[in-house]
Amino acid sequence: MKLNVAATLTYGFGSDTQVIAAIEAARSPDQTIISESLTVWPDCELVRDQDPVTGERRFRTALSGQVEIRYRAVVDNGKRIPLVPYARQHAWSELPQDVLPYLLPSRFSPSDEFMRFAQREFCAIQGGGARVLAVLDWLHEHLDYVHGVSHAQTTAQQTFIDRAGVCRDFSHLGIALTRALNIPARAVSAYALDLDPPDFHAVFEVYLNGGWWLVDPTRLAPVEGMVRIASGRDAADIAFLTSQFNCQCLAQRITVSQAPDDAGQQAA
Amino acid sequence: MKLNVAATLTYGFGSDTQVIAAIEAARSPDQTIISESLTVWPDCELVRDQDPVTGERRFRTALSGQVEIRYRAVVDNGKRIPLVPYARQHAWSELPQDVLPYLLPSRFSPSDEFMRFAQREFCAIQGGGARVLAVLDWLHEHLDYVHGVSHAQTTAQQTFIDRAGVCRDFSHLGIALTRALNIPARAVSAYALDLDPPDFHAVFEVYLNGGWWLVDPTRLAPVEGMVRIASGRDAADIAFLTSQFNCQCLAQRITVSQAPDDAGQQAA
Amino acid sequence: MKLNVAATLTYGFGSDTQVIAAIEAARSPDQTIISESLTVWPDCELVRDQDPVTGERRFRTALSGQVEIRYRAVVDNGKRIPLVPYARQHAWSELPQDVLPYLLPSRFSPSDEFMRFAQREFCAIQGGGARVLAVLDWLHEHLDYVHGVSHAQTTAQQTFIDRAGVCRDFSHLGIALTRALNIPARAVSAYALDLDPPDFHAVFEVYLNGGWWLVDPTRLAPVEGMVRIASGRDAADIAFLTSQFNCQCLAQRITVSQAPDDAGQQAA
Amino acid sequence: MKLNVAATLTYGFGSDTQVIAAIEAARSPDQTIISESLTVWPDCELVRDQDPVTGERRFRTALSGQVEIRYRAVVDNGKRIPLVPYARQHAWSELPQDVLPYLLPSRFSPSDEFMRFAQREFCAIQGGGARVLAVLDWLHEHLDYVHGVSHAQTTAQQTFIDRAGVCRDFSHLGIALTRALNIPARAVSAYALDLDPPDFHAVFEVYLNGGWWLVDPTRLAPVEGMVRIASGRDAADIAFLTSQFNCQCLAQRITVSQAPDDAGQQAA
Repeated sequence: MKLNVAATLTYGFGSDTQVIAAIEAARSPDQTIISESLTVWPDCELVRDQDPVTGERRFRTALSGQVEIRYRAVVDNGKRIPLVPYARQHAWSELPQDVLPYLLPSRFSPSDEFMRFAQREFCAIQGGGARVLAVLDWLHEHLDYVHGVSHAQTTAQQTFIDRAGVCRDFSHLGIALTRALNIPARAVSAYALDLDPPDFHAVFEVYLNGGWWLVDPTRLAPVEGMVRIASGRDAADIAFLTSQFNCQCLAQRITVSQAPDDAGQQAA
Repeated sequence: MKLNVAATLTYGFGSDTQVIAAIEAARSPDQTIISESLTVWPDCELVRDQDPVTGERRFRTALSGQVEIRYRAVVDNGKRIPLVPYARQHAWSELPQDVLPYLLPSRFSPSDEFMRFAQREFCAIQGGGARVLAVLDWLHEHLDYVHGVSHAQTTAQQTFIDRAGVCRDFSHLGIALTRALNIPARAVSAYALDLDPPDFHAVFEVYLNGGWWLVDPTRLAPVEGMVRIASGRDAADIAFLTSQFNCQCLAQRITVSQAPDDAGQQAA
Repeated sequence: MKLNVAATLTYGFGSDTQVIAAIEAARSPDQTIISESLTVWPDCELVRDQDPVTGERRFRTALSGQVEIRYRAVVDNGKRIPLVPYARQHAWSELPQDVLPYLLPSRFSPSDEFMRFAQREFCAIQGGGARVLAVLDWLHEHLDYVHGVSHAQTTAQQTFIDRAGVCRDFSHLGIALTRALNIPARAVSAYALDLDPPDFHAVFEVYLNGGWWLVDPTRLAPVEGMVRIASGRDAADIAFLTSQFNCQCLAQRITVSQAPDDAGQQAA
Repeated sequence: MKLNVAATLTYGFGSDTQVIAAIEAARSPDQTIISESLTVWPDCELVRDQDPVTGERRFRTALSGQVEIRYRAVVDNGKRIPLVPYARQHAWSELPQDVLPYLLPSRFSPSDEFMRFAQREFCAIQGGGARVLAVLDWLHEHLDYVHGVSHAQTTAQQTFIDRAGVCRDFSHLGIALTRALNIPARAVSAYALDLDPPDFHAVFEVYLNGGWWLVDPTRLAPVEGMVRIASGRDAADIAFLTSQFNCQCLAQRITVSQAPDDAGQQAA
């Protein structure tokens, strides 16, 4: 599917604040950047990073005062196939080396805490894909999508108790439960079609059958309509904006829409 | 039921360690002490406390080196009736003043954390007693009785995640869920018939229909065979031994047995 | 000192919300209520409680919609003496029975966690009063009084790490450190002269030399100008308003002023 | 310095337990493997990993029953220079891309929690190296090296409160404080000369002046006598043995000694 994505972020910074931003679509194998533009106003020098393995990108700079960051892209995200129940789970020894860290507990998805619960709840289900689908069903049944219950430091344990949260929290608990079942899982930030209100979305990926499968535990957006930005162990790794000091969001506007088949000429 | 209870505690203390012990059967309205004896060896001066409202007792002293504390009693615990589903829940304004603290969250039973879960899980059930019985069923179904998962600082949140623990943990989670349903609950330590291996037991009580009802969330011992020792907000309040510095358990032996109907003459 | 205190609380409640309020000056031995009035509008039935030991008072009721609670009093708080360094620390066996619970860790002041730090930092100081004064100096030096860092569930551990908080947080950490030094301590809510902006104040008391001594770890108000409301293990016990469901503060106004010597006739 | 390192690990595993082991000396630029041998008995198939950037190695396999893992190496760790106070701190934009994750909070070293404390305590000190040395002095002064206070899930916050721990805990708190000062820091496992009793050692590295500097917050071993094994965000990433299920340590023996200058022929 071809998608137009646009993000305009207006923030206020203290003097000379160091910043890392992850808002560009990843140049990952499963999606093609047809055209794109990134502008920061007032103009400033950017250090541009691209991960050699994942194709994910970030830029670094130092910002002061009121700043507008503007990103536009047309992306073809190819044919993203929803997770199938028969997707096979791998033994550790079969996994690619760079997948191994996603087996481990992390700060917001401490899977070691959920070993016993995951075994009790999901061990009867056979097969990697089917187990992850059962985790997603469990999340859908037991969590409410509610703003104001969680905050930026909320862990999967707290969400498990609260039974409520936002996309970030759904993903953290989903990742924790999936890793507790011995399946590699990583947090992913994305632009998502149909998300209402539009915003950066937090979803996750599981490694099964030789590849990563994108899933949305909130069921708020179809995986076919997502443009991947960044991946990491949990939300701290994939923040769209990491700044050295507190900064103030003045305005933020995200739009995602389906692009016509001949898109690519018109990215602003 | 008339019960013989015996506790022999052998502990090692550093020099002149201040100690509070709660091992004597409570002189509460629901049980009668027929006979009892308490000895501490080597001999030392004891300050004896009895709570004017609950009849619960503690003694205080300073201990050094190896000490043996020995308690024997014959207690008639009367007719303790297991909780009935139709036991009525009270409005706050109907409760006796001294019951109010047991509505509040406490360190190991922070009921405020479980408000949403308790509502989701138990709100369809009508009536105070029936709700508490549903909580007990939930605990029985979702927790394993396992040593080594929890420790003395384990909270109800951790047990809710771990899905395992010992009597103390079952009670802490039971109390948290019950209070989250707006029903007063308190932790109780007890001598319990049929507990295998014999030990101090941690159970809890709920206030319904004008009185406290004793329940055992582990289902390891019948409430009819329990002798109440102390009650409090959670386990920290009812420890059988609170000491100023670390002390070492050298030996501990508890026995509880049914006494013949004419018991009372033979307490050692 | 004679003090006029006035509190006007305007809150919005859902239908028939059970409420416990602790806003009346305590009838404790150290202060005399010269005159007072309590009104709740719209008019409703109140259950009035008074603790037989502490003289602290609460009222209970069920409230709906917008409610104004209005309390006025003239109180003579006698001669409240600031803590002296030579105030003697008691052995456990010397303490009154009702003081014992204030030796124990509580949810927001888990003193057991601070045993090692308290020993390292304060063990060289001799004497009960001097130790507590050293704790107060430490708090003054290491904590910033800042709004927005803490929230209603913030514990003494978090404040110890954050190095910032409000009156409630200062007291929780002060209580934890004091109990870790084996000195009974309890949280106290109060009306306080000179507090700017005026609000309910959270302070604490330590038991030394046969009595409770009031201290203000924030140093924002003199203890001589305080009117005690309620005491408890930590802030959860002394909330001025505990309600069954969330309620909304619409307006809240507290005033405390010194009353003329012949006050008592004019309480509104 | 040339060093002989030897590790013999005897563990008991359940049937067919997946395992990742990080016990081989890193092929990092700062050290040269002169000779080495790795044997697992009973014999089994190993998947060998080497990180393309760091040269760190791990092996993966599935183990059953009693297994002995034996590693021997002669390593020249070159000239490892202790941290100098004038080592320069970089702006984020100057850092190599692969250093960026070590600016972020992690599970056991959540640096965001320590921002205020780190500013209060260390902001007066100028310069990257000098700041890290001040952190190391602070740790030395305020923490006791004690076994039994911490466990495998202990965080930097808990160690900050406990004021005690082992090498892992010293490093976690050191990393958290260093990152809170905006300096990249990562956990490192190592073989260390002079460690008594000999064991795997946990230390950390800071990125200053264009390179990583190894520091030992416990001051138990000189950095000149260390052989690096693995690095990561915190201890979970660098465990010498990660196993799918619990396993039992039956025996573990580490030895590190200085090798003669002509070493290299005699590695067993």
